[in-house]
Amino acid sequence: MSLITTDSKGVFVIAVTPFNDDGSLDRASVDKMVDFYFDKGADGLTILGMMGEAPKLTQAESIEVTRLTLKRSADKPVVVGVSAPGLAAIGELTKAVMDLGAAGVMVAPPSSLRTDDQIIAYYRNVIDTVGTDVPVVLQDFPLSTSVQITSKTLLSILDAHPSIVMVKHEDWPGLQKITDLREAEAKGRRRVSILCGNAGIFLPEEMQRGADGAMTGFPYPEMMVDVCRLSNAGRYDDAQDIFDAYLPLMRYEQQPGLGLAVRKYVLAKRGAIATPAQRRPGAALGAIAVREVEKLIERQERKLEALK
Amino acid sequence: MSLITTDSKGVFVIAVTPFNDDGSLDRASVDKMVDFYFDKGADGLTILGMMGEAPKLTQAESIEVTRLTLKRSADKPVVVGVSAPGLAAIGELTKAVMDLGAAGVMVAPPSSLRTDDQIIAYYRNVIDTVGTDVPVVLQDFPLSTSVQITSKTLLSILDAHPSIVMVKHEDWPGLQKITDLREAEAKGRRRVSILCGNAGIFLPEEMQRGADGAMTGFPYPEMMVDVCRLSNAGRYDDAQDIFDAYLPLMRYEQQPGLGLAVRKYVLAKRGAIATPAQRRPGAALGAIAVREVEKLIERQERKLEALK
Amino acid sequence: MSLITTDSKGVFVIAVTPFNDDGSLDRASVDKMVDFYFDKGADGLTILGMMGEAPKLTQAESIEVTRLTLKRSADKPVVVGVSAPGLAAIGELTKAVMDLGAAGVMVAPPSSLRTDDQIIAYYRNVIDTVGTDVPVVLQDFPLSTSVQITSKTLLSILDAHPSIVMVKHEDWPGLQKITDLREAEAKGRRRVSILCGNAGIFLPEEMQRGADGAMTGFPYPEMMVDVCRLSNAGRYDDAQDIFDAYLPLMRYEQQPGLGLAVRKYVLAKRGAIATPAQRRPGAALGAIAVREVEKLIERQERKLEALK
Amino acid sequence: MSLITTDSKGVFVIAVTPFNDDGSLDRASVDKMVDFYFDKGADGLTILGMMGEAPKLTQAESIEVTRLTLKRSADKPVVVGVSAPGLAAIGELTKAVMDLGAAGVMVAPPSSLRTDDQIIAYYRNVIDTVGTDVPVVLQDFPLSTSVQITSKTLLSILDAHPSIVMVKHEDWPGLQKITDLREAEAKGRRRVSILCGNAGIFLPEEMQRGADGAMTGFPYPEMMVDVCRLSNAGRYDDAQDIFDAYLPLMRYEQQPGLGLAVRKYVLAKRGAIATPAQRRPGAALGAIAVREVEKLIERQERKLEALK
Repeated sequence: MSLITTDSKGVFVIAVTPFNDDGSLDRASVDKMVDFYFDKGADGLTILGMMGEAPKLTQAESIEVTRLTLKRSADKPVVVGVSAPGLAAIGELTKAVMDLGAAGVMVAPPSSLRTDDQIIAYYRNVIDTVGTDVPVVLQDFPLSTSVQITSKTLLSILDAHPSIVMVKHEDWPGLQKITDLREAEAKGRRRVSILCGNAGIFLPEEMQRGADGAMTGFPYPEMMVDVCRLSNAGRYDDAQDIFDAYLPLMRYEQQPGLGLAVRKYVLAKRGAIATPAQRRPGAALGAIAVREVEKLIERQERKLEALK
Repeated sequence: MSLITTDSKGVFVIAVTPFNDDGSLDRASVDKMVDFYFDKGADGLTILGMMGEAPKLTQAESIEVTRLTLKRSADKPVVVGVSAPGLAAIGELTKAVMDLGAAGVMVAPPSSLRTDDQIIAYYRNVIDTVGTDVPVVLQDFPLSTSVQITSKTLLSILDAHPSIVMVKHEDWPGLQKITDLREAEAKGRRRVSILCGNAGIFLPEEMQRGADGAMTGFPYPEMMVDVCRLSNAGRYDDAQDIFDAYLPLMRYEQQPGLGLAVRKYVLAKRGAIATPAQRRPGAALGAIAVREVEKLIERQERKLEALK
Repeated sequence: MSLITTDSKGVFVIAVTPFNDDGSLDRASVDKMVDFYFDKGADGLTILGMMGEAPKLTQAESIEVTRLTLKRSADKPVVVGVSAPGLAAIGELTKAVMDLGAAGVMVAPPSSLRTDDQIIAYYRNVIDTVGTDVPVVLQDFPLSTSVQITSKTLLSILDAHPSIVMVKHEDWPGLQKITDLREAEAKGRRRVSILCGNAGIFLPEEMQRGADGAMTGFPYPEMMVDVCRLSNAGRYDDAQDIFDAYLPLMRYEQQPGLGLAVRKYVLAKRGAIATPAQRRPGAALGAIAVREVEKLIERQERKLEALK
Repeated sequence: MSLITTDSKGVFVIAVTPFNDDGSLDRASVDKMVDFYFDKGADGLTILGMMGEAPKLTQAESIEVTRLTLKRSADKPVVVGVSAPGLAAIGELTKAVMDLGAAGVMVAPPSSLRTDDQIIAYYRNVIDTVGTDVPVVLQDFPLSTSVQITSKTLLSILDAHPSIVMVKHEDWPGLQKITDLREAEAKGRRRVSILCGNAGIFLPEEMQRGADGAMTGFPYPEMMVDVCRLSNAGRYDDAQDIFDAYLPLMRYEQQPGLGLAVRKYVLAKRGAIATPAQRRPGAALGAIAVREVEKLIERQERKLEALK
């Protein structure tokens, strides 16, 4: 039952939540999916994130998904998204999942926050609520939350709360923010683990600027694994070659709203889950889109073959 | 165990949720508060609304507040707010509170909705989720949700879903929307009950335009009761006289964010709850604001005395 | 040709822009309107604000409205709204109106700003653009701009730019911000003039908390004049009596979007402008709304009579 | 002096506006830049768009940039962006640029629009203002405007206004919208030209779904030219090969806010403009970002070489 720390590195895959076609939880697929992610080289998982359809689950279902995932993940770390409109719900879910053995919890700011002070106060309230012994991932994803956190504000929050051990970095543009955090660290501020989201679309640059890995759900986790591994070995050109081969599909998958349909389609195709079904409301992938995705996959395979 | 219908009328007070100073639920105050509202003439209550600090409660607490309120309200109707980011949570809470004897549930649209079709689809999903036998109140409150529902869109939704029996009207400006709904009804569209929110700030005009009453939490429910009663009797000038006496405080209470602190201060002062405490995060009423409120109350009492 | 300063006080009426029914500028009404405002006791005017339909004017028309207003205002100060999406347009219009004799310019932040640093940088760019010798009014109106400026951020901006001599205060809730600015001043920060907007709806409290007057366009400027005069004389109860008499109409006029139709209707009725016409797009006042306004005016006159 | 029509096709490059390092207009670079774009195969230009820093120009400058560009473009079509907060400004600039010989004007909706009816009314007002003889491009770019236009709403607008001859398509996700428009056309609705923006990031799929070309400013216009040409010839795989070679840089350039700095850096490097300077406020490209861009260009050239 490992906890994430400021030194956590590697690839934490943002897991989907498998559903049956009737919208019920597909419990059977959870094991298959967990195995798939770890077989492809994941170092950990993050469940119940935005792309995990978390808000569509009842609280009981959230806890069950956590229990099932943790059981199958054995000693690998699993972070659980606990973002909610209110602190009480965050506190309740955090306690439940940490008791079950989660490695930490992830919290994105509610979209009502505007000023720096509001953002700082929000995370103070979160830490007061979950307690200082629970490792927290701060999710910085303005495209989705519309909350803009400057590097300065982020550093203030990190200074105040040592239990925020990781940043899920997906500001856009956000490369400078990684540089700011690492330069601050070089000048004596404390270290924080930075795992990058944003569908992986800037992973080569992010790794070179000092990120510790990826936390995103692109349905070819081997892409993130390879890019991180090669980057850590200083083989930046090779990392970029791999990345480039996947980029056309990655770009297609990054479409807001539609992206999850692409992701689940590919995961089902690869056998990681039984069906691409999303719980309602969810955008379905039309016939033309399926053809587009299939063609991108075919081209991707050709390119990867050529790289061997 | 009465249900709300398209013919529901009168004053449904938006109840606060009483907390102790340490942020725990003040169960003992629930009875006092329920008695207070009905003593002042309320026809029903609405709990777990935005001003009921609903998002700050755990699900278990939400259900307990509902149980306590329903028990004390005897056969009076109690509507329960069930708005949530996801349909599953809405469905789960709806089932729980209807089983306990709620008169109906209230649902505001999530702030991500933009186009007419998105709003229409959302309420279709909500009705599919809660079932067509649960009376639903559609809360139309753009200032808070940022979702703008035109009269045309609202009428489409009402046409499609007979179980939406009531609109909590708090668009701003929104007087024309009441007129639109009533004109549509005169031309053969089905009737819907319209209870008005927005802190009561347009109640005299709303009643004259065809509203059926008020659903708001101004801490002098007797204001809403008197304005509705006098309006229904055609005594519009007397209604406006009463309204005008309360208006300076009503205006002060309508300040977003701060309003709940004013409301709870007055309710505590009037003995309806033990303390004005809000669960975190909540704006406290500073010393100057307390003086301002006290002065407004003092003037209000003088004016009401003069009206007798 | 007086300039506004940090000591400016009193009532600056937000002027409407008179149009003919065909949407062309009603040049003839400008003189009548200016005379009306000053006859009712205004100390100055503010033109080309949001309620002055400024974005509907061409640049040439903006300059002509300024020229006509300044000419008729003789030596009374006239502030000109110069908010625009870009700095170049702000700079160009500022130069033009200051050359014509304006007393200062007013700038609201563009709605894209989010973080404290973005807001601070914006006003630095504005001052760089207009030059440090032009007196600037910072308009703080989050309901319209969606930009939230904390007291701390506002004080940083005021510290950095002495030429920002005035704040048009219309945050909501915003009473604490006035207190914050005055407490900072008591502790040695420099003084700034605070004139209050928000349709005048909190004017009595604002004056008691240290505001210097009003900058809003309620079509009975004598209300603002009387409330300010009585407040300055320490006669707060008398000020509140006057305020209360106007409050029902003020509340009605504060409806976003619709408010300007109410304002122009009353101004036309009082002879200040020839017709309530707005340039397209503009909400018209329907027949029912006209009856509501007329009734509120009638009641208002009865109440004012009773106060004499 | 050609006008755009519903049959317009090809690549209209979104032109930047060249500035000197002191922020003044770099008139001399306009000719160079126009020549560059047409040398690379552009069929037309679009100036004064969002990426043309249009809001940073005074009206006089906007007209001068138009005049200079039109003069150098000879008989090639040049569309001019005329989006503005108010209709009068749109009308004034439209008249000026059409008199100078523009091929049409482009209008994006103001970010205050929410409901379908508001969007429809807005374009009715625009067409009333500019007149039905001016060809209009409707810019559909929700990521920037936050206005969401459904296919149904878009078709209503196109039905009502034949002078809207072109859609600048940059919804995200938006591929289905192209399909919707073309399916409607197949069923008898009138044709509209669809040129795609969004930094070109979906151009291969867009062309296959029936788009007529590209309208975006990626600083290698030859990419758009080749992808359009090959797609029109049915050589989709070749088109995608070209596209893929440019995609890593395209993705980097698509970063909101920062993208223009990348674009101008590359254009200056390629000799199309004298310097990458933006008028204030504008994000500069830091040293690390420059290295990242340079590396992407180097890799891009290697890949293009390999495709020959």
